[in-house]
Amino acid sequence: MLRDWVAIESDSSNVQKRPELHRMMETVAQKLRLMGGTVQLVDIGEQELPDGQTLELPKVVTAQFGNVSSKHTVCIYGHVDVQPAKLEDGWATDPYNLTEINGNLYGRGASDNKAPVLAWIHAVEAYQALSMDLPVNVKFVIEGMEETGSNGLDAMIMAQRDTFFSEVDYIIISDCGWLSRRPALTYGTRGNCYFFAEVEGPEQDLHSGVYGGTVIEPMTDLIGILDTLISPSGKILIPGIREAVAPLSDEEWKMYQDIQFDMDNYKNKIGVNQLMYSNKVDLLAHMWRYPTVSIHGIEGAFSDPGSKTVIPAKVTAKFSIRQVPDMDPAMVKKQVKYMKNYLHSVFAKRRSPNKLKVTMVIGAKPWLADTHHPLYEAGKAAIKRVFNTDPDLIREGGTIPIARTFQDVTGKSIIMMPIGGFDDGLHSQNEKMSRYNYIEGTKLFIAYLNEVSQIKRTSV
Amino acid sequence: MLRDWVAIESDSSNVQKRPELHRMMETVAQKLRLMGGTVQLVDIGEQELPDGQTLELPKVVTAQFGNVSSKHTVCIYGHVDVQPAKLEDGWATDPYNLTEINGNLYGRGASDNKAPVLAWIHAVEAYQALSMDLPVNVKFVIEGMEETGSNGLDAMIMAQRDTFFSEVDYIIISDCGWLSRRPALTYGTRGNCYFFAEVEGPEQDLHSGVYGGTVIEPMTDLIGILDTLISPSGKILIPGIREAVAPLSDEEWKMYQDIQFDMDNYKNKIGVNQLMYSNKVDLLAHMWRYPTVSIHGIEGAFSDPGSKTVIPAKVTAKFSIRQVPDMDPAMVKKQVKYMKNYLHSVFAKRRSPNKLKVTMVIGAKPWLADTHHPLYEAGKAAIKRVFNTDPDLIREGGTIPIARTFQDVTGKSIIMMPIGGFDDGLHSQNEKMSRYNYIEGTKLFIAYLNEVSQIKRTSV
Repeated sequence: MLRDWVAIESDSSNVQKRPELHRMMETVAQKLRLMGGTVQLVDIGEQELPDGQTLELPKVVTAQFGNVSSKHTVCIYGHVDVQPAKLEDGWATDPYNLTEINGNLYGRGASDNKAPVLAWIHAVEAYQALSMDLPVNVKFVIEGMEETGSNGLDAMIMAQRDTFFSEVDYIIISDCGWLSRRPALTYGTRGNCYFFAEVEGPEQDLHSGVYGGTVIEPMTDLIGILDTLISPSGKILIPGIREAVAPLSDEEWKMYQDIQFDMDNYKNKIGVNQLMYSNKVDLLAHMWRYPTVSIHGIEGAFSDPGSKTVIPAKVTAKFSIRQVPDMDPAMVKKQVKYMKNYLHSVFAKRRSPNKLKVTMVIGAKPWLADTHHPLYEAGKAAIKRVFNTDPDLIREGGTIPIARTFQDVTGKSIIMMPIGGFDDGLHSQNEKMSRYNYIEGTKLFIAYLNEVSQIKRTSV
Repeated sequence: MLRDWVAIESDSSNVQKRPELHRMMETVAQKLRLMGGTVQLVDIGEQELPDGQTLELPKVVTAQFGNVSSKHTVCIYGHVDVQPAKLEDGWATDPYNLTEINGNLYGRGASDNKAPVLAWIHAVEAYQALSMDLPVNVKFVIEGMEETGSNGLDAMIMAQRDTFFSEVDYIIISDCGWLSRRPALTYGTRGNCYFFAEVEGPEQDLHSGVYGGTVIEPMTDLIGILDTLISPSGKILIPGIREAVAPLSDEEWKMYQDIQFDMDNYKNKIGVNQLMYSNKVDLLAHMWRYPTVSIHGIEGAFSDPGSKTVIPAKVTAKFSIRQVPDMDPAMVKKQVKYMKNYLHSVFAKRRSPNKLKVTMVIGAKPWLADTHHPLYEAGKAAIKRVFNTDPDLIREGGTIPIARTFQDVTGKSIIMMPIGGFDDGLHSQNEKMSRYNYIEGTKLFIAYLNEVSQIKRTSV
């Protein structure tokens, strides 16, 4: 089943793959229908492309299993779109042909987020196979635009707040991973504002020998403004961003200090000989609760192997800022304005005849939960039962913006319960899900549905 | 014939296209054989790739028509490899399907350099068709690695200096274009040192949400060092480069002042609202006789449309410096050392844990000729005969390194006689050769062979 799902190149960032994405959503819906669920493919409208054209968004799949009013109702969120992947990027195997090597299942989307979605489906199937009633009513919300910012999903949740979501008690998200070999529960995520900075000069690419020395090259301008985002040591140079972050409290410091985290192991996994910070607390804090800026790449410049003597006419840098939970949406909005103003002022100082355009293409909010909530206590109990250990209580550096939306719109409590391994290579080459995590993770979900059914109504 | 040649994707910078390049050379050889030439496909060995592997270089085609000792012998140099081109780059037509629109023949390599090579072939065929003896002996040297630095050709010329080249009196190159609608003779070209600067960090690409804030990103380092190459106004910041250039003499100033060159036309053609310099002499001087630095792009970073939240693990910037004629090879060698030292010193100041590697992949020399040489006088006469005008005497900002090699190795005189239009879009989208330039250019070559035959022996 996972092989079939991975074989569909459901890359949501590439508009040319949109038909595959539609096929993916239909495949999910069909699976849930065959299991006897009440399934809907919810139209969430269209996406506007940078060139002004529109494109149909992949439908959101909703499903319901069981509708017994005396039982709790959980809603499981997941996504089945994936990040781009090409064999040439450095994959050892075809990213869209799930391949098992030493107990690991390699393929794009295996861990993020196709296997976790399937593990939830298999958990429901397990109760069905044993002819047991589900201990709780189970709903699914499966989307296909997560990797590019869950376009259209917020509006859909708002629209169905008083219908599909009205009976939901708890929301469960399994779109993240463990920090170590120990199972984990996740209680916070960072936000993400993703920017395009486009510098446009000549009408078309020029020969650098023939024209070099006669025009101010857009690439030079772009490099110049990108170089003002981050200091060599990794400090964000955009005014107003770092100042907005709450200082690390003593309590937090102690909590981070207690987390099982092997710095050397982490360093080896990434394959660097030096991390940005040399002690555990600083490193975890900068991974989870401080903002960061990454420059992902440049579109429009020469990016192939070999040499090309070109002056690219229009170049677009892609970079993003990860926001932290104490930056509220209003503050982020202000910071985006800072950001644009900052880049334009840096650009203005260059007195370039080229044109700069800065747009924010993703704006995803951070999220934070209370680890003593009954949902988390139920999670700890299920983990104890399946793995016979206490979980790591961790945050995610990455973004799961939908958590924040669920919280804001439905007012329901949310838990993040990952089953992906700490070394699954999300968004990277050779992404995998281990056979162990896939199967034990499914058991965890089965146990968790049972634990949740025992939460007292009063504590909701 | 041009359509057949353009249809072969003889991209010398893409190793995967090497079979097409071999096919191209065989096609050229076969054409010259059918015309009755004495043809050889000269093995020039292998190319070493950055990863240490080797790849067979395309053979060089040599041919000879006529061997009358009382006649002069000219050697025509051309190349049939091309720059990369993809429809997605912004071509209006398939770059490998020659398409005529309003008298222009669009296709990659149409002007650079397939049509000029064919025009020379057609010039020989014209004499053959009229059953006339060629007024001079004609030799051809056609290569397939020009666009990536003529790998292997220098050694081949050196090896055949006392054989194939010993009877050659003059060398003719038509690998450039006019400056305006007026035909031109070219008497100088800039050199080109093309660099790869690779910054390597983590072992593989990382998710920027999960890992952002824990590692010093290679992309940040690369942007940082690229930003130290050029000032916002286009000044080269690498010490020792600009200082090595001879100041513009009064005589040069006057010569440039006399050239037919329409600044507004040039500006419109490029599609910019402001050039780097606002007067003709400064602009021409920076196009032809001052060095320049261009940043072409970055390999290994995210370069596709859409958004990807990735920290690229290894990124390689491609940039080049165009040297000017008065920089001799020893000086350029010293400057390359400056260049590497400079980048490494800038990088060292960042105290990054990442690794920097700087390599020069192309090192092509500049060239300068005497416009009063009989070869040029013959050129002026042929242009007068076909176009009824005096030529523009111009230089090329681009690089035709083989001119310098021919001069250094064979000691023969060289002329550059372009037939390409000023707006042919070399190395750019929608490259074309006009039907007019192709046909009148062929006539020019026919006339030129006749003019050259009248040069007095003493003046060689």
